[in-house]
Amino acid sequence: MRSVVLLSGGLDSTTAAAMARADGREIFALTVSYGQRHGGEVEAARRVAAWLGVARHVEVATDLRAIGGSALTAEIAVPKGGVAPGIPVTYVPARNTLFLAYALALAEVSCADEIVIGVNALDYSGYPDCRPEFIAAFEALARVATKAGVEGRAVRIHAPLLKMTKAEIIRVGLRLGVDYSMTHSCYDPVVTADVVMIPGKGGLPGAIKQIACGRCDACRLRRKGFNEAGACDPIHYAAP
Amino acid sequence: MRSVVLLSGGLDSTTAAAMARADGREIFALTVSYGQRHGGEVEAARRVAAWLGVARHVEVATDLRAIGGSALTAEIAVPKGGVAPGIPVTYVPARNTLFLAYALALAEVSCADEIVIGVNALDYSGYPDCRPEFIAAFEALARVATKAGVEGRAVRIHAPLLKMTKAEIIRVGLRLGVDYSMTHSCYDPVVTADVVMIPGKGGLPGAIKQIACGRCDACRLRRKGFNEAGACDPIHYAAP
Repeated sequence: MRSVVLLSGGLDSTTAAAMARADGREIFALTVSYGQRHGGEVEAARRVAAWLGVARHVEVATDLRAIGGSALTAEIAVPKGGVAPGIPVTYVPARNTLFLAYALALAEVSCADEIVIGVNALDYSGYPDCRPEFIAAFEALARVATKAGVEGRAVRIHAPLLKMTKAEIIRVGLRLGVDYSMTHSCYDPVVTADVVMIPGKGGLPGAIKQIACGRCDACRLRRKGFNEAGACDPIHYAAP
Repeated sequence: MRSVVLLSGGLDSTTAAAMARADGREIFALTVSYGQRHGGEVEAARRVAAWLGVARHVEVATDLRAIGGSALTAEIAVPKGGVAPGIPVTYVPARNTLFLAYALALAEVSCADEIVIGVNALDYSGYPDCRPEFIAAFEALARVATKAGVEGRAVRIHAPLLKMTKAEIIRVGLRLGVDYSMTHSCYDPVVTADVVMIPGKGGLPGAIKQIACGRCDACRLRRKGFNEAGACDPIHYAAP
């Protein structure tokens, strides 16, 4: 059986994809680049898709900067002070509705009976479209939105991480052999360059790299998760 | 009060937008170009937005050709034999779900309380995402999908044409002063060029134009509508 897996290249979607593979599902990975601040996500998604050995990796581009309204798609600063109550400015309006709409299209075209989305409603940023009632409402929509739905071939919206803590997610991923150095979580990575030492000339800038900031909500939730899981996070952070 | 109006540049969305304007709504028009075969739609949407005098016209680009599965987004021929029963190959999987997802994002960012979509379930092509149950399911989704929904500011999905015949739609539009020569309906326009006569040199090709084919479902439904409304369709057709 075939699953369309929304793969952002982050820790959650990578783990959800690894779980689908462990369940014996054939995977069509779908990555939506939407003009987000943290462009490193798409490269991470490609690394993960290659590692998973997916049957197909579809990349769709759009540009939510035309709509804006979020720290990830507009000139709004990413908060670095710690996870606060309420819905933060990194919330991208209707993003998961949009992602699931693309996934629904791909599921219909590829006769998949399941869409996997790595949303999580425990160690999360308070986004409304990561909650169980959102997933249930989209599944109800899918039943009436498509030709497949009308013909009785319903698509299940499967959110395997929904009620797991970040530590539980990481433990499951490690058990499935996920190498988390492939993944990218940071909302606002620090762009830096390797320094190449040339004898007699000193240091010259080498390859450009993106390093996780260590202070945004995504970094904080990830670090806390590894800490609670008693595991080492293999990526590097700009802030200690 | 502000409405986000999905404006494709076709007859239906133009009429729905004119109705919203007549209701005294401020209009934020939203046009999604998705790699469709009939690219003339976007230019039509710009003409209509200018004529309406919308407060803002947002254009978002994506490319559903990466997903395919429709005569409008893949190398599948557009049927020309007449409107047949069932869901035709011009159906674009999950297109209206995607359009409404973008509209939901814009509505949230711009504090609009209504999304207007010109779907029609009578003189239509049998698309599943043009039916009342689809509109109701998306409205239920919107209540749980966004920050605005969580905070109790629900967005209404208004489909004023849902139960109107094409002739009724055209009559309403004409009464509101819509000039339908601005609009584009054809799924598979014929690309042609003006001929410029140069004295002593004969005819040379001039400006490129797109002319409605006259035979696809969209052309047939439009022509039937004008016919039943007892009105003249101001656009030209390649086929008589």
